[in-house]
Amino acid sequence: MEETVQSIFDYIDSHFDDHVAEVQRYLRQPSVSAQNLGMQECAEMTADYLRTLGADAQLVPLEGGHPVVYGTLRSNSSDKTLLIYSMYDVQPPEPLEGWNSPPWAAAIVDGKIIARGAFNSKGPLMAFVNAVQSIKAVTGDVPVNMIFVIDGEEEMGSLHLPQFIDAYQDELRRAQAMYFHMPSEMIKGRPQVILGFKGNAYFELEVKLREFDVHSGIAAVVRNPVWRLVWALNSMRGADDRIVIDGFYDNVRPPSQEDLDLLPGIVDVLGPEALAGMYRMNDPYSVNLAGPDFVRQVLFEPTLNIDGFLAGYTGPGSKTIVPASAIAKLDARLVPDMTVEEVLGKIRNHLDKCGFEDVEVRFVTGYGPAKTRASSAIAQAAIRSIEKMGVKPGVAPLVPGSAPEVMFAEPPLSLPFAMSGLGHGFLMHAPNEYFEVEGVRACEKSAVAFLYEYAAI
Amino acid sequence: MEETVQSIFDYIDSHFDDHVAEVQRYLRQPSVSAQNLGMQECAEMTADYLRTLGADAQLVPLEGGHPVVYGTLRSNSSDKTLLIYSMYDVQPPEPLEGWNSPPWAAAIVDGKIIARGAFNSKGPLMAFVNAVQSIKAVTGDVPVNMIFVIDGEEEMGSLHLPQFIDAYQDELRRAQAMYFHMPSEMIKGRPQVILGFKGNAYFELEVKLREFDVHSGIAAVVRNPVWRLVWALNSMRGADDRIVIDGFYDNVRPPSQEDLDLLPGIVDVLGPEALAGMYRMNDPYSVNLAGPDFVRQVLFEPTLNIDGFLAGYTGPGSKTIVPASAIAKLDARLVPDMTVEEVLGKIRNHLDKCGFEDVEVRFVTGYGPAKTRASSAIAQAAIRSIEKMGVKPGVAPLVPGSAPEVMFAEPPLSLPFAMSGLGHGFLMHAPNEYFEVEGVRACEKSAVAFLYEYAAI
Repeated sequence: MEETVQSIFDYIDSHFDDHVAEVQRYLRQPSVSAQNLGMQECAEMTADYLRTLGADAQLVPLEGGHPVVYGTLRSNSSDKTLLIYSMYDVQPPEPLEGWNSPPWAAAIVDGKIIARGAFNSKGPLMAFVNAVQSIKAVTGDVPVNMIFVIDGEEEMGSLHLPQFIDAYQDELRRAQAMYFHMPSEMIKGRPQVILGFKGNAYFELEVKLREFDVHSGIAAVVRNPVWRLVWALNSMRGADDRIVIDGFYDNVRPPSQEDLDLLPGIVDVLGPEALAGMYRMNDPYSVNLAGPDFVRQVLFEPTLNIDGFLAGYTGPGSKTIVPASAIAKLDARLVPDMTVEEVLGKIRNHLDKCGFEDVEVRFVTGYGPAKTRASSAIAQAAIRSIEKMGVKPGVAPLVPGSAPEVMFAEPPLSLPFAMSGLGHGFLMHAPNEYFEVEGVRACEKSAVAFLYEYAAI
Repeated sequence: MEETVQSIFDYIDSHFDDHVAEVQRYLRQPSVSAQNLGMQECAEMTADYLRTLGADAQLVPLEGGHPVVYGTLRSNSSDKTLLIYSMYDVQPPEPLEGWNSPPWAAAIVDGKIIARGAFNSKGPLMAFVNAVQSIKAVTGDVPVNMIFVIDGEEEMGSLHLPQFIDAYQDELRRAQAMYFHMPSEMIKGRPQVILGFKGNAYFELEVKLREFDVHSGIAAVVRNPVWRLVWALNSMRGADDRIVIDGFYDNVRPPSQEDLDLLPGIVDVLGPEALAGMYRMNDPYSVNLAGPDFVRQVLFEPTLNIDGFLAGYTGPGSKTIVPASAIAKLDARLVPDMTVEEVLGKIRNHLDKCGFEDVEVRFVTGYGPAKTRASSAIAQAAIRSIEKMGVKPGVAPLVPGSAPEVMFAEPPLSLPFAMSGLGHGFLMHAPNEYFEVEGVRACEKSAVAFLYEYAAI
């Protein structure tokens, strides 16, 4: 096996310029699911790439959503089947003025491919495709059977993915585990194997009192929806930072001893210095914690976050109005064993109890938290394949982000899962998102190493 | 005098189509001061119109602002001088999708001229110009000397008008009073004479914690500027609607008996039914008051209003971020004897006291409140001229709006002032702002009547 893997690595090295060009080509096709920009084109492009691997591939339309790109690739040498999850959609590129190189140019600047989706996650997906193509070119086969599920709504919360899982349940059941190949070196040289995700309940709060803005001269007698929303928000989380919604923390499962034992090993990637460096923050944190205690707070504490707020006049200068309506976008990150339905219900009850019946709660997207044990085959294959490439990965029992692939980890499929891979990139969800060119190479080789490790385990 | 006035009325009637065409022509020239759209063009157009009356007219540049159009028109028959205040700038037309006829088309629909500025205040200004032109055409003279001060920044708060007043103090001192001809029939058939304005302190509150948005997965450990701003706002005005800034109400002068005696006469224009009709509101008021008590609340209660709020992602779907910054636009309406400086100082002190040193208070624009006694010559001329046209006006000791012309009412000029005129229009500051075509006619005739009444008093 080691020799085969080395030959494939050599093949990747000798074809690397072409591989990078394919990554750039793929990134130049916009695919912003939230804005319905380029989605059909990118889905077809993705299916075509799978077909070049010898896979059966098709677009599975979802009612009210963007299609899933679904493909199957057979191995002649293995009974094992992996569900390979990834996404072809990306976050909106706004604010556009923040980009030093345009988000759809995929230009290489100082050894980095700069594009929306470069790192999250079209760049890594194309690196995985390049890796499988290299395996086939060298061996004429693949080491495991693969079922590709390439999501078109990950960045919107995969609201319609359950439709797909429902319809393809029998096919998906052939998989023993789910894998998401994602270069995990947000801090270069510090890869991670990720075994769990927080859940996410994304929702809007809106107060709409009338059809028209009115002149602010009469503010002494009319209700202002912005004040109403400010007061409603304040009632949910006070200036001491504590979420004061009745029962919000009731179902929080404390971390297990196995979870806690993993935390010291990921302080260098999720500790205060690491996050400050990654996000270029120089303002103080809201908590006074260090080391594993800080990481525990990041991973095992649920949140209630305001993502956006829009009301009235927000242009230059002044406009004197009582706005007709106000809207806030929020996300609550959920830890095991919280659920989306439970949390949204508690928020509605809280608002009613506090006299904010005029505040509408509108669910946007969400899914629960999920975790896989570090002793599982998929986790062990991910950990060992990285180790064999010469680095000891951090193992995260949970990460602060959320991911819809937890839908495969819940009943009826209940698949164990892991997310891993080498390569450095960053600034996902922000301007100047990038993936290092050399990160593409590491990403491809780590995909090869993982697939052979899982086949052998 | 009555015969002369009647001849001028006849002249207006026989030239009315041309007069309306001039109003439309003027409205088709955009002049949005806050967006610096068409300002120079509109200023020159305004000066040209004054010159057609025989006035000396010039653009007075203001450092950092839009020019004042300044003109003088001499009377051969009177020693009296009026400062005629008006404005050539308008509010932004946004939201554009709300307009049934485009804001710069000045189309006539169902007997209404629909345009941004139709009623506030380019339509009435052109009606006044048409009135003076008619007076000159019929009599060869004007009944009083006039100093025109046509503001280019009224809708931004006339931030640079003090520069002009300072530089032209000696010239302006020749005026005995200031007059703003404004059709006051926001409710048709119910004109008002306005003798006072609330002040207005317009400011922004901003919390900026970092340069970049960060992924909301780490919301459990980073400060969120939107929450900070929500909590700061909540600390200033609680859910019981009361403004709780230390000392905010300290300098509020209660209405005098003369003020209170005027209130029953304006319930039909400023009472709960009137405001609900004008602003097409069907939601309940924030106060449970009726008749003169309601009007007293509208006029003599200071306010703290949120005009706009912007933070983070506000587009469709979801984007999961802790925003880098948050900004709110507010206006505080001031009653006698509050001042802008006093109120902004108290807000700063309040925020510091409550631990919100991270909230920046940024003054945008503002001016104090001002009142003129109903017994003054200018007030009496305004009241009697309307009465002579067959309607009994309401007399408002104060109105809920604010106006920079109070700068002429304060030292060093300390001019008494009135604002009046006939004609119906509405929806200033909102889509579909309009001025009735017949309102233009009434507006022109009431200007003529006022000028002769003031000359004779």
